[in-house]
Amino acid sequence: MSTPTLKQAETHAYARILGIGAYRPSVVVTNDDVCQWIDSSDEWIRQRTGIVTRRRAPEDVSVLDMAEGASRDALASAGIEANQLGAVIVSTVSHPYATPSAAAALADRLGATPAPAYDISAACAGYCYGIAQGDALVRSGAADYVLVVGAEKLSDFIDNTERSISFLLGDGAGAVVIGPSETPGIGPSVWGSDGSKWNVIGMTHSLLDVRDLSDEAEHNGASNAAAVLGTEAKIWPTLRQDGQSVFRWAVWEMAKVARRALDAAGIEPEDLAAFIPHQANMRIIDEMVKQLKLPETVIVGRDIAESGNTSAASIPLATVRLLDEHPDLHGKLALQIGFGAGLVFGAQVVVLP
Amino acid sequence: MSTPTLKQAETHAYARILGIGAYRPSVVVTNDDVCQWIDSSDEWIRQRTGIVTRRRAPEDVSVLDMAEGASRDALASAGIEANQLGAVIVSTVSHPYATPSAAAALADRLGATPAPAYDISAACAGYCYGIAQGDALVRSGAADYVLVVGAEKLSDFIDNTERSISFLLGDGAGAVVIGPSETPGIGPSVWGSDGSKWNVIGMTHSLLDVRDLSDEAEHNGASNAAAVLGTEAKIWPTLRQDGQSVFRWAVWEMAKVARRALDAAGIEPEDLAAFIPHQANMRIIDEMVKQLKLPETVIVGRDIAESGNTSAASIPLATVRLLDEHPDLHGKLALQIGFGAGLVFGAQVVVLP
Repeated sequence: MSTPTLKQAETHAYARILGIGAYRPSVVVTNDDVCQWIDSSDEWIRQRTGIVTRRRAPEDVSVLDMAEGASRDALASAGIEANQLGAVIVSTVSHPYATPSAAAALADRLGATPAPAYDISAACAGYCYGIAQGDALVRSGAADYVLVVGAEKLSDFIDNTERSISFLLGDGAGAVVIGPSETPGIGPSVWGSDGSKWNVIGMTHSLLDVRDLSDEAEHNGASNAAAVLGTEAKIWPTLRQDGQSVFRWAVWEMAKVARRALDAAGIEPEDLAAFIPHQANMRIIDEMVKQLKLPETVIVGRDIAESGNTSAASIPLATVRLLDEHPDLHGKLALQIGFGAGLVFGAQVVVLP
Repeated sequence: MSTPTLKQAETHAYARILGIGAYRPSVVVTNDDVCQWIDSSDEWIRQRTGIVTRRRAPEDVSVLDMAEGASRDALASAGIEANQLGAVIVSTVSHPYATPSAAAALADRLGATPAPAYDISAACAGYCYGIAQGDALVRSGAADYVLVVGAEKLSDFIDNTERSISFLLGDGAGAVVIGPSETPGIGPSVWGSDGSKWNVIGMTHSLLDVRDLSDEAEHNGASNAAAVLGTEAKIWPTLRQDGQSVFRWAVWEMAKVARRALDAAGIEPEDLAAFIPHQANMRIIDEMVKQLKLPETVIVGRDIAESGNTSAASIPLATVRLLDEHPDLHGKLALQIGFGAGLVFGAQVVVLP
């Protein structure tokens, strides 16, 4: 039997971001609020992180609700109907189910069924990872329109009394629609990982520790459960980091990654209208601006001051703010870079929608 | 300022699977073993599911260990070094950390750093979702070589006394390397979701229920913890399904999806050398073979008899078995289809490595 040749989907020469949306939850958490739980001060937090407030979602607003809000805005701004979507990608680390994905539920809520839908785990680089995938899916012809969402309810996975990361974190969601373009709208993605630093950001426990404790308590009966829980006060896994290691890595390595993304796209810093890094710490942002020698004409995303670190949502949230404040940025070039737990990183130059 | 044109990565015309590997864990769980925990019989389980044994991993073998074993085999069979990988994609629902990803740790273990690395959540369709992404990344020029892994230690997330799904499930991992090809090696992916059926397969509880119980126990002290745990015996989230709904959906809808994947690739059933569906239930496999009117010359993957349902790992595990048993299948066409929690599905025709 001779093997027939497989047909291939028609490709698109180029892709671009067609529209963007954001969801900012309603609860404003100030530094004074945070200092109820940790021994710090408004001044210290501002100086060391640049954060003035962070937004958090109330109990009745889920990560899926925020993803839906941002997605509806992105679809409206792109002028695309949900039923035109060829893929729905949700980057999140705070969806509280091992399976099914948040994306499948989101696709259904939006009316995007039967679009393929999947979640990705790439932490604070997740939005840029999603852009890389959406770009590849559109250009390879696997999809015409791709919804990429970064959505996090990190407040569900923090311990307010923990000092390494919890006070930095906020909730929120951002989304974009990527589609075919007549001109290049997304530069080559410079993305990667360094799993040798897998332990520097992550969870305090494995879920299997929780399971084992739950099993032990159940099997040994209630009186033993009391003894077990009495000795294991903090078994629920929450986020933590080795802040110094992360800070050093971000400051020393991420400007190089951003520079490589410029080079890959054939772009000089002077060509940029905006620089929109992951909103992890204002000092990291300032340091990257300096190392990249960005001219003062480049507008820098500094949404962290009001939104905190929202992981995969931070870049689209910052982008929406910049576009609102500077409408002349539409259609101009922005350099974006995400980085976080894994460690993982991703950067690309994009034409702003 | 005029906006310069973004450079684009060089694309590859075609992609194919270059190599494949599998990891089968050591513990053989028989139907008689399972019947210690549920009121059933070896005969009933064989008749209704086709499962004779399932493999499970011992306590000291993690989902990452299995992913690594399968990946090393896949790299060796592809003749590709880990440092040539342009992306590492792990499909899993049983990695026990919200973040970082299993993929970042895997990339480091393999020596693939600094390859981009991310996990995807698409349950039992995850392998075919990964193939769709790997194909798009290679053809769009985002990567030269992509490692796609399906790895599951489902035994960590089951309740042996639960009757809807636990007795079907096994552990294992499968992996492939996708790379550039001079001829088309992967047909267009027919993939999608139906989130209106989000609830028919999933977890018994949200992780937030576990957190709230843990908080309540901690804040109220040990004596109250005993009372709480006494009334909430089964708070640890484990897998469960509405078996009838899933069975009906798989039997009625999945043959149509598989048929569309043939059409998209321009292939007739007679052109196929193998059919390798997700190993969920032998009766679903038999029904799909019938509905697709596959000729008897098409060899069908029936690894479920010995391996059970290993979610994202089932298709590559079944593929490795077929290639071992029928070496003449190398280079021939196979139709593969995954489907599961979400609900999600994905199918494509591939040239076997």
